[in-house]
Amino acid sequence: MAVYTEVPDDEVDAFLTEYNIGEVLSLKGIAEGVENSNFILHTTLGLFILTLYEKRVEKTDLPFFLGYMQHLAAKGISCPVPIAGKDGNNLRELCGRPAAITAFLEGMWPRRIQPFHCRALGRTMAEMHLAGQDFKIQRPNSLSVDGWEEVLNACEEKGEQIKLGLTQTLKDEFTFLDANWPDTLPKGVIHADMFQDNVFFIHEKLSGVIDFYFACNDLLAYEIAICLNAWCFELDNSFNITKAQLLIKAYQEVRPLTKEELKALPILARGASLRFLLTRLYDWVNHPEGAFVKPKDPLEYLNKLKFHQSVKNVSDYGIIL
Amino acid sequence: MAVYTEVPDDEVDAFLTEYNIGEVLSLKGIAEGVENSNFILHTTLGLFILTLYEKRVEKTDLPFFLGYMQHLAAKGISCPVPIAGKDGNNLRELCGRPAAITAFLEGMWPRRIQPFHCRALGRTMAEMHLAGQDFKIQRPNSLSVDGWEEVLNACEEKGEQIKLGLTQTLKDEFTFLDANWPDTLPKGVIHADMFQDNVFFIHEKLSGVIDFYFACNDLLAYEIAICLNAWCFELDNSFNITKAQLLIKAYQEVRPLTKEELKALPILARGASLRFLLTRLYDWVNHPEGAFVKPKDPLEYLNKLKFHQSVKNVSDYGIIL
Repeated sequence: MAVYTEVPDDEVDAFLTEYNIGEVLSLKGIAEGVENSNFILHTTLGLFILTLYEKRVEKTDLPFFLGYMQHLAAKGISCPVPIAGKDGNNLRELCGRPAAITAFLEGMWPRRIQPFHCRALGRTMAEMHLAGQDFKIQRPNSLSVDGWEEVLNACEEKGEQIKLGLTQTLKDEFTFLDANWPDTLPKGVIHADMFQDNVFFIHEKLSGVIDFYFACNDLLAYEIAICLNAWCFELDNSFNITKAQLLIKAYQEVRPLTKEELKALPILARGASLRFLLTRLYDWVNHPEGAFVKPKDPLEYLNKLKFHQSVKNVSDYGIIL
Repeated sequence: MAVYTEVPDDEVDAFLTEYNIGEVLSLKGIAEGVENSNFILHTTLGLFILTLYEKRVEKTDLPFFLGYMQHLAAKGISCPVPIAGKDGNNLRELCGRPAAITAFLEGMWPRRIQPFHCRALGRTMAEMHLAGQDFKIQRPNSLSVDGWEEVLNACEEKGEQIKLGLTQTLKDEFTFLDANWPDTLPKGVIHADMFQDNVFFIHEKLSGVIDFYFACNDLLAYEIAICLNAWCFELDNSFNITKAQLLIKAYQEVRPLTKEELKALPILARGASLRFLLTRLYDWVNHPEGAFVKPKDPLEYLNKLKFHQSVKNVSDYGIIL
């Protein structure tokens, strides 16, 4: 949870004169998001989110992120639509930081994942993948195979402090994935961080997706792999095949997967496990003493990795080829 | 900034069935308040604040706090009105904690205090003091003269780590105040924590007062003394007599102060300085390493104490007796 920058009341007043969204009634920092400062902005014309981009987000990436949200919204995907100012720009500066206002998205993220959540997620994910096909700006995924070695090296041997032998396991897995990664599958724009706290529901209806600040161009099926990990394991680390089946089935009702994509799912899921294991390990060994944000347990993803290593073929995810 | 308790989406749904305020659309933890967990609750019928009372608030005090807010609101004072459930109760339980829903109060607290803020504050404070006269529940001020010695002792000699000789200064001041405290002045309910982040404005208009969790029965003029400290010193510790004059004058337009109250202001202001110096010192020496909330500098209040010790009479606050 985080508000890194305090926004004085008079600066908000001045900032809003550059928009046509009414006058400020209240502004409250919210305890969500670990990269940026987010505020609920209530004006005489409605509810909005004000985001100040802190140093962990590259300023040059912002046109991609904001453009992608605008592109998705124009195609009917519910997400925080960036609001353009009177000059047509949706990105400006406040308190010395890049800043944007987006529409407020109703809904809550589900604390206890049910099968119906996975079905809705699969459908929306496929719709997003189709909607992104003609989005023009490109952003490579710095956290795909090419980027993993750097994170691995940056953690040095510190994995050993968490679990003896972890470093060798990760190196072996990286070597395998680097040699076998299915680079020729269909590509497009993926959200790349569609964890449960980024997907909102109102009762059983998916009301929208937030936090597009990892979005990038990559293999579309890799996003499914990320979500199998994020949505289909129980708290005891067991894999819930019903949820996986529903997720993939709902996805395919909108965008059928090729045979190659289906066959590649186990290796993509191994890659998705390694990617989050690595970044969690990095955050774990590098987080400052007493930081706001408690780092997440990297070993959760070691268990997922081991599961996918044991998978014989895609039928273990409930899918018949 | 703080959200200590996470509220699962399905528990909010169930909680709201006990109210007539519509169905939940969103719930977001806000980075405000250091004692409790606060959420902006948006329902199909409007905006509200959901508060979960954490362990620093005494459960037995809650009927006083909630009752006082309801009492003030009924008399036209703008504050977060507690919302009663279908059973008439405004206090119930959520996630194992006492919980209440209040109306959402528009406005922002002023980051840069201007004279007009002090004028509005004086007027509203007097209105609150009058409105509280017939409030029936009592709550003694545990942080008035009788309570200071305990905090002083709890800090032991740790004040010496901050400033050599501080402990003796505080002991001497306590001895003086304990002997000279003007106990016979008019009493009533005071907010007791009316700092700038608890008073909201929309442009130049005071839109309401929040955070009543230090409210108690005490000398009414003691509240003015607290606010002289909180609102009338500049960042360089200089005293702004214009702001003080406006504050007291606006107060007196609603509730004229007795001659005894005016004469007592310097000693009350010394007491108010000591009270915040002591609790800040306590928080400073006792805050856990890496805590969310950075403790405030106790020495700011030593400067204020010294100023009031130097005051000859109330004319130094811009008031002619």
